[in-house]
Amino acid sequence: MEFYQKMDKLRIAQTNKYNVFRCLIRNGPINRAAIARMTNLSIPTVMTITAELLDKGVIRSIGKGESSGGKPPEMLELDPRCFYCVGVDVGRTTIRLIATDAASGQVAELQELTGNPLPARDFISRIGDLVLNLMEKGRIAPEKIVGIGVAMPGLIEKESGRVIFSPDFEWTEIPLKHWLKEKLPFTILVENANRALALNESYFAGDGEPTHTAFTVNLGHGIGAGLVLGEELYMGAGGTSGEIGHIIVEQGGPLCMCGNRGCLEAVASGDAIAKKGRAAMEKGEAEGIYALCGGRGEEIEAKTVFMASERGDQAAMKIIDDAAEYIGIGLSMAINVLDPDRLVLCGGLMRNDVSFFEKIKASIEKHKMKQTGRQLVITRGIKGENSTAAGVCRLLLNTLWRERSLPI
Amino acid sequence: MEFYQKMDKLRIAQTNKYNVFRCLIRNGPINRAAIARMTNLSIPTVMTITAELLDKGVIRSIGKGESSGGKPPEMLELDPRCFYCVGVDVGRTTIRLIATDAASGQVAELQELTGNPLPARDFISRIGDLVLNLMEKGRIAPEKIVGIGVAMPGLIEKESGRVIFSPDFEWTEIPLKHWLKEKLPFTILVENANRALALNESYFAGDGEPTHTAFTVNLGHGIGAGLVLGEELYMGAGGTSGEIGHIIVEQGGPLCMCGNRGCLEAVASGDAIAKKGRAAMEKGEAEGIYALCGGRGEEIEAKTVFMASERGDQAAMKIIDDAAEYIGIGLSMAINVLDPDRLVLCGGLMRNDVSFFEKIKASIEKHKMKQTGRQLVITRGIKGENSTAAGVCRLLLNTLWRERSLPI
Repeated sequence: MEFYQKMDKLRIAQTNKYNVFRCLIRNGPINRAAIARMTNLSIPTVMTITAELLDKGVIRSIGKGESSGGKPPEMLELDPRCFYCVGVDVGRTTIRLIATDAASGQVAELQELTGNPLPARDFISRIGDLVLNLMEKGRIAPEKIVGIGVAMPGLIEKESGRVIFSPDFEWTEIPLKHWLKEKLPFTILVENANRALALNESYFAGDGEPTHTAFTVNLGHGIGAGLVLGEELYMGAGGTSGEIGHIIVEQGGPLCMCGNRGCLEAVASGDAIAKKGRAAMEKGEAEGIYALCGGRGEEIEAKTVFMASERGDQAAMKIIDDAAEYIGIGLSMAINVLDPDRLVLCGGLMRNDVSFFEKIKASIEKHKMKQTGRQLVITRGIKGENSTAAGVCRLLLNTLWRERSLPI
Repeated sequence: MEFYQKMDKLRIAQTNKYNVFRCLIRNGPINRAAIARMTNLSIPTVMTITAELLDKGVIRSIGKGESSGGKPPEMLELDPRCFYCVGVDVGRTTIRLIATDAASGQVAELQELTGNPLPARDFISRIGDLVLNLMEKGRIAPEKIVGIGVAMPGLIEKESGRVIFSPDFEWTEIPLKHWLKEKLPFTILVENANRALALNESYFAGDGEPTHTAFTVNLGHGIGAGLVLGEELYMGAGGTSGEIGHIIVEQGGPLCMCGNRGCLEAVASGDAIAKKGRAAMEKGEAEGIYALCGGRGEEIEAKTVFMASERGDQAAMKIIDDAAEYIGIGLSMAINVLDPDRLVLCGGLMRNDVSFFEKIKASIEKHKMKQTGRQLVITRGIKGENSTAAGVCRLLLNTLWRERSLPI
């Protein structure tokens, strides 16, 4: 029914207020005449709105600016402390929490090892405690929190905030949002971790330029992706988009956790690289790997294989080269179909030698259709280890903007 | 800058008018009180707008409806003859033209064999003549035409209407829109044929239900696709999206026209099926194909291989089964990444025995990630041979709606 949304006075006033607020976030410090010019509003309208925003304490005056002839104008800017979001990145090895202010700046952070599995309800209760610890650490009053975002690996049902299936935690049908809300009476949003990461990494992706279509891949223990169109995260019809790890790149290849054979994740993820490294050592083909782990197969991680490869171990080099080749094949498929202008490669595998990134780029160049991807720029993720938590904060903020339910 | 678009009186009035017009198209015949209810507008506003639309001749009264107590209300509906679009589908073998009215109903059609290649400028001049013939045939006055849409195979630059690269016509950098406009002084829009088809096929895809994400594949001489999000065609950052024919499904497989090896198009398109049929016959492995073409390899088309397969030729059956298997692998990739709720299979290959469609569905079920595509419905295209031409008319109409430049 949105086609028929009525352009009444209340809606116009609200739209104007959000436009002025956005203008202050993006362009502040700024004077009222400049706001009027940029938002196409009259100066009296801008004066009324800024008075309201000043009164609510969401913006502040920082004194007089430069005069352009008349008396110097008063400069206004967002008060970033007017509200906060909390983002929680629940990972297989680490739980990372951050709080961000209204300007999306990080104001507090907290990390804990995930540790041994707890029953889901206890684990969620622990997440609740960590959020409270973070608020205390950042000295953030509960009434200043506009909501809490939780990023989880796995398949999430958006509306209910249920975790339908998370292989990493062996969870099936867990009402995460419902249980967390019992402990934390805030707006709560649950999202797939790869998508949260994608939103943050593609947001003016490092160089300040907005993108048309950004495809962000998380190359870690597993492989997943997220698609951002304009500034909006793409969800998919059933909430399962981005599963590039389960496209088949080697027919009849190794068995994948998902039940199929030859998935990208089964041949090129961190877990696959470690497994191949182990197998090579056991066949006596990888002296470099043997030397690094002292022959203890269970200690071999993807990192071990990367290190052996850098030291010239032939078997390790082949494993790494094959992984880069397959990742390039998988990403070429996304490029052919989606024609993105930005491809961002993130995750644990990207923390190894930069030659791995270069090899993936070479494989993409070889496997994508020549005429596609004319606008494409390929970069590494640069937003650090809290990027997923920051992404889920951003998603929460975007949702509140769209619903016009910010405390302004 | 659209964030800051001002909600001024003119824009409100225009939005209200387009809402009333849309309500009349979708729900007419309808009375004024019902329009007011559905559009959230006051009855006086609806009266003013309908008076203007009646005056311009874009809607008409069809008499009194049923009374719900008071005096019977006047029933209004769109006058479909208030304006027309022309759609041209320039195909490798046939040029199809249709004219559609304001209700998107087809009012005239024209077909011609593409024939032997002409120089691009002459060929475009011929398209212009065909459009004029169609207008004459349908008795459509030039001033009633809101624009002409042209669907072409190949890579199109949207803004300029240039054909950057069309292997089917061996065109490179042809200013189609510019040259056509010299002959036909109308609004002209040029679009890739697979995308135009996708827009039409996914439009309330056959059962009246709007879709979230519809992925439409054209399985013909080549293989291409189009993505529709909501009611909007997805373009891609550089205008080359939908090239699913050039994802690699058989590493080291046959050489493709694009220069790579093992592309879906090189192993499963109509051309690939014909080529494989020819090779099988030449090796003496396909008696059924030999019987159908009398041993004349150059007469073998995909259709020949399908027919031989239906008659039990083992080599032909394997070629068809392999093609279905590969198409399923390719489409599984799109399903994993995009999570569509609708997949529509169209094109020449779909006009063969329905078992081919069933085999593709079985391959998808086997190769997609089990947990994805929870909302997915897979159908065959049902909108017939003018679907691409109808799609480019729809795209033109959508563009004029968005630009608020319909003659209403």
